[in-house]
Amino acid sequence: MNPPRLLDGKAVAASVLDECRAEAAALKAHGITPGLAVVLVGEDPASQVYVGSKARTCAELGFHSLKIELPAATTQLELLEVVRGLNADPAIHGILVQSPPPKHIDEAAIIRAIDPRKDVDGFHPENVAKLVLEDPTGFVPCTPAGCMKLLEEAGIATTGAEAVVIGRSMIVGKPIALLLVSKAANATVTLAHSRSLDLPAICRRADILIAAVGRPEMVKADWVKPGAVVIDVGINRVADPTKKSGYRLTGDVAYAEVAPRCAAITPVPGGVGPMTIAMLMKNTLQAARQLTGVRSGGV
Amino acid sequence: MNPPRLLDGKAVAASVLDECRAEAAALKAHGITPGLAVVLVGEDPASQVYVGSKARTCAELGFHSLKIELPAATTQLELLEVVRGLNADPAIHGILVQSPPPKHIDEAAIIRAIDPRKDVDGFHPENVAKLVLEDPTGFVPCTPAGCMKLLEEAGIATTGAEAVVIGRSMIVGKPIALLLVSKAANATVTLAHSRSLDLPAICRRADILIAAVGRPEMVKADWVKPGAVVIDVGINRVADPTKKSGYRLTGDVAYAEVAPRCAAITPVPGGVGPMTIAMLMKNTLQAARQLTGVRSGGV
Repeated sequence: MNPPRLLDGKAVAASVLDECRAEAAALKAHGITPGLAVVLVGEDPASQVYVGSKARTCAELGFHSLKIELPAATTQLELLEVVRGLNADPAIHGILVQSPPPKHIDEAAIIRAIDPRKDVDGFHPENVAKLVLEDPTGFVPCTPAGCMKLLEEAGIATTGAEAVVIGRSMIVGKPIALLLVSKAANATVTLAHSRSLDLPAICRRADILIAAVGRPEMVKADWVKPGAVVIDVGINRVADPTKKSGYRLTGDVAYAEVAPRCAAITPVPGGVGPMTIAMLMKNTLQAARQLTGVRSGGV
Repeated sequence: MNPPRLLDGKAVAASVLDECRAEAAALKAHGITPGLAVVLVGEDPASQVYVGSKARTCAELGFHSLKIELPAATTQLELLEVVRGLNADPAIHGILVQSPPPKHIDEAAIIRAIDPRKDVDGFHPENVAKLVLEDPTGFVPCTPAGCMKLLEEAGIATTGAEAVVIGRSMIVGKPIALLLVSKAANATVTLAHSRSLDLPAICRRADILIAAVGRPEMVKADWVKPGAVVIDVGINRVADPTKKSGYRLTGDVAYAEVAPRCAAITPVPGGVGPMTIAMLMKNTLQAARQLTGVRSGGV
């Protein structure tokens, strides 16, 4: 078979970020600087990396960014106060509380406290509902939005396609299924999960297969219909003594054996991963536009 | 083949209503009478019938009911005022604005104005989000809830079952798909629709087939896997000169040819239809309990 087409998330993300940079410049002509606040509670090293990279991307695009680092002992009430302050801050258009917070924090209550118009993660109930209701003023969660953008940029037709999504999480699986079945995409969507019987047979139906389970290399070659498009949302750390870090990153798809069967596939890393932060920036721009009423460009 | 088992919505609805009656009596011992307000704008004859039957059912169960009939010329602002009054009325636990309102009314804005704690139709964004997030304090839309109750009462196992839902509406198809895929039901769910290719083949995979399209007798015998369970949500009027009314009711399923293949099937009428109003009463009780903090019985 021909080698599969690589769905290059790095390249697509770079072009989304270029558009964001241009759009931010256009907004500045109106006196508006898109502003993103990222709140980190505690000292989880992975979270620190994510938060740092979000702030850096903001700087690269000419966004205003605010990084609020709070001690692990921060109380629910203190965190709510911080969120309320950001809700009221006119320089901030997007608010993100890095997940997961420490265990004593009620994350759902924190998300509900964020002004839904600034909820650039798309996790607030109002935005969840807008996703179901296909209301474009809502914020689509960044990873699902990134998957859709990858398909779109690659010119992969979704109308009438059989899409299978493995994983029914609130932040990836369900939103992707809702996006794929919406009138904008028109796919026939099957949502499968840990309780599904004969997952390989279900996956083999897919013209578009989305793996979002968090289990390294679960999807094998014989799960994939020849010629399918495969989007691998998984980013799993697998021990690897040959690496300096002691681990390597792998997706939910057994890439080496699956890729030769596919028409197109995302690599891990470099597939969906880079798209997430790009779509976060795009959501922040959308928030800035919607909050200020200034429209410009077409990001 | 053996004759299929009839999923008798009339009987299940009657038993749900019996439980509601008992629960209402138990709440009365605490000084609480469940109260449902139904608002009708305009004079659509079908809507008048629905509203009348809701009020009658309330009376039969010992619920307080309030029927508010407004002229077709009622403005958006006037209707919003009525909704606000009901939100503030402590005797009212459930509020329902009969659909469809006249064209000059923005129905989505009216739904958003209903206190989500009184939104017994389950259409408010907050309840839509709770459905996605599997939060049991939300109100599940009545027809989807009725379908799930029919499956449950018939002892039909959903875990690992292949369910196919035809129709992606916000009030039936999507909610049913979300309920079936939730951790409470664990089905593998395919959501199909007008843009799906080869609907018959997709439907033939189904252990549980839910038709919610509104096209009379669209689902034919060869769309149904032998031994499947079929839930027919459609209630369509088809011209029939042999009837006094000039029409007969038919579902989305060609019952006569499909039924012999099924393990179980809902008739139309007498299947899903009677469940809708029963689940509305159950939602009103849930609202009364949640608003007053009084728990009693287990409806």
